[in-house]
Amino acid sequence: VPAYVYSIARIREKIDALRSPLAKRAIDSKIFYAMKANRHEGILIDLARDGHVGIDCCSPAEISRALKSGFRESQITFTGTGVSDADVRVLADHPGVLVNCDSISQIRKMARACVGRSIGVRVNTGLGVSYGDSEQFSYAGTKATKFGVFREQFGEALDVATKGGLRVVGIHCHSGWGIANTQLTSYAAILRELRTFTDRVADLEYLNLGGGFGVRLKESDAPLDIDRFVSAIDDHFGSLGVPIYFEPGDYVVKDAGVLILQVTAIETKRDCVFVYVNGGHNLNVEAAHYGLTHPIVPLTLRSGSLSSVTVAGNINEAIDLFAEDIEMPKIEEGDFVAVLHAGGYGASMSSNHCMRGAFTEWLI
Amino acid sequence: VPAYVYSIARIREKIDALRSPLAKRAIDSKIFYAMKANRHEGILIDLARDGHVGIDCCSPAEISRALKSGFRESQITFTGTGVSDADVRVLADHPGVLVNCDSISQIRKMARACVGRSIGVRVNTGLGVSYGDSEQFSYAGTKATKFGVFREQFGEALDVATKGGLRVVGIHCHSGWGIANTQLTSYAAILRELRTFTDRVADLEYLNLGGGFGVRLKESDAPLDIDRFVSAIDDHFGSLGVPIYFEPGDYVVKDAGVLILQVTAIETKRDCVFVYVNGGHNLNVEAAHYGLTHPIVPLTLRSGSLSSVTVAGNINEAIDLFAEDIEMPKIEEGDFVAVLHAGGYGASMSSNHCMRGAFTEWLI
Repeated sequence: VPAYVYSIARIREKIDALRSPLAKRAIDSKIFYAMKANRHEGILIDLARDGHVGIDCCSPAEISRALKSGFRESQITFTGTGVSDADVRVLADHPGVLVNCDSISQIRKMARACVGRSIGVRVNTGLGVSYGDSEQFSYAGTKATKFGVFREQFGEALDVATKGGLRVVGIHCHSGWGIANTQLTSYAAILRELRTFTDRVADLEYLNLGGGFGVRLKESDAPLDIDRFVSAIDDHFGSLGVPIYFEPGDYVVKDAGVLILQVTAIETKRDCVFVYVNGGHNLNVEAAHYGLTHPIVPLTLRSGSLSSVTVAGNINEAIDLFAEDIEMPKIEEGDFVAVLHAGGYGASMSSNHCMRGAFTEWLI
Repeated sequence: VPAYVYSIARIREKIDALRSPLAKRAIDSKIFYAMKANRHEGILIDLARDGHVGIDCCSPAEISRALKSGFRESQITFTGTGVSDADVRVLADHPGVLVNCDSISQIRKMARACVGRSIGVRVNTGLGVSYGDSEQFSYAGTKATKFGVFREQFGEALDVATKGGLRVVGIHCHSGWGIANTQLTSYAAILRELRTFTDRVADLEYLNLGGGFGVRLKESDAPLDIDRFVSAIDDHFGSLGVPIYFEPGDYVVKDAGVLILQVTAIETKRDCVFVYVNGGHNLNVEAAHYGLTHPIVPLTLRSGSLSSVTVAGNINEAIDLFAEDIEMPKIEEGDFVAVLHAGGYGASMSSNHCMRGAFTEWLI
């Protein structure tokens, strides 16, 4: 401890939770797990063994790791941003990897290094959905974001690809993070808008809808009803005649992982009861840097009533708090706590700030 | 590239910038560099060689690194938070390290493991100053923060120490980050309040004022006038008769380091010119996660007028922007840019998010 513990059973369950409703409606589809959410080798090896799950990478090092974990090139998609010539040289070395180009400049780079290749174009509908409608998690919206090709430049993108000897065969669109039921109406508008892109691709072989499916973080969050989500997709693209790809990351791993920490001290300072733990925001940045709240539960059961506490980490920064003013059952120094929903973007974004970066990872 | 480049000359200059006005006023003082800002080994070795600079650590691993870099135990202070029994066992192994206790529970732990030891108590005046008066960087304020012992519990802290066989010989107070000229009045109030703590310590051997001295981040920032700052300290504590300790971190290294990145693409999307670079917020979190702006300058000079650009990283997150809508001279793909003022809390907080965490460090 500190230790991240992941449940492979829950991960498989989440994959199935997305795959089953798609199968039920006979939607030709494929899931590419977004490695950036959690690159723990045991998870990757298990997903590769499934045989029907692909993997989405966003950097050359992620491609190497995917291959090492047992994925074949044909099961790998690459969806990067700010892609460099050095990145593209690696893509050239892996001709079987399906590349979604994020910009016209990336298409130009691909044309130079990978002539003859089939590519996807990541598009930006100018519409986005995000957790709590926050701008922080919005990958598209009224303000131009760095991702994808907007509609008015899409013709140029197709043109640059064709002239450069590339075949555009896919449309990719990632619309945000934390898509919830309440946003299904906005999401339907995105699907409608996407049609204006897919209709312009003569050789369309797939539509990739990215990830961002909401995971319940706090009790008041309405969990995404995947059936309704899939039904919306079926309505818009059931007749498209090409497979639909998905890139779930957090949706697969978020609630399949916990971060276990030990209570080092409990001390009241002014009107606040601080429960100090032996890890900090360098191990999981979501509370301190994204304002996301994770439920935190004690792993030792003691009788006693709930009281309001603030859970503080061991990093010398004022923002290093896992949770403020949450209700917690009686807890004592030496007890262990679990930070729930810590399976995604936890270990993968961890740092050695204050040289308190050591932790272990367990796959059960 | 990506590469962090640090100037040892600038680091020495900044140490002197603090040391000289202290010497001029014959203030008995010592500087303990806060390692958490930048733990690059070359920097640590150079500071250790100086002989007159100590080092402040906040974790057991930082103590090991300080010793390995040439600091003796007597030159090391430890100021941690959420300190565990495991941490205290390491402190027991290093009896020469001067420990500033952050809480009454830490004093209890120290009493169990290090009986007879002289300690400092980190106090919380309930007053804080911070960059732009932001709450994010405030280490003390109206809301109780996790750091230090408040006045109403200070008597208990002294009592626990004495009964536990510890000698309280120091007062430690860190008041924030980004202390600027405009905050010298607030800072004077903190110094006044601190007097109520120092007056209660019979065996006082030092007063440690922490760090947090402002560094100019953008042109409109008023740089801290160290002479005025030192003069305020002299006014309040010149007659105290014990040495004053300081723990500058960012002040020493921030503007002694730059992050060099290469432009991978320039592309206009809607009304925004994106300059993409081959690094992301995982290499320097300050813009994305702390809202701090760093000047970014091209390293290739080209004729042409300024234009407004957004500098975007290569991480698949919407917030991964180094700067939005800044004026930049003409720049082309393949050019190098320097993110200025990147010497503190850059490399030390970096992560391998998206497996794009590789960078080099150079000390010149």
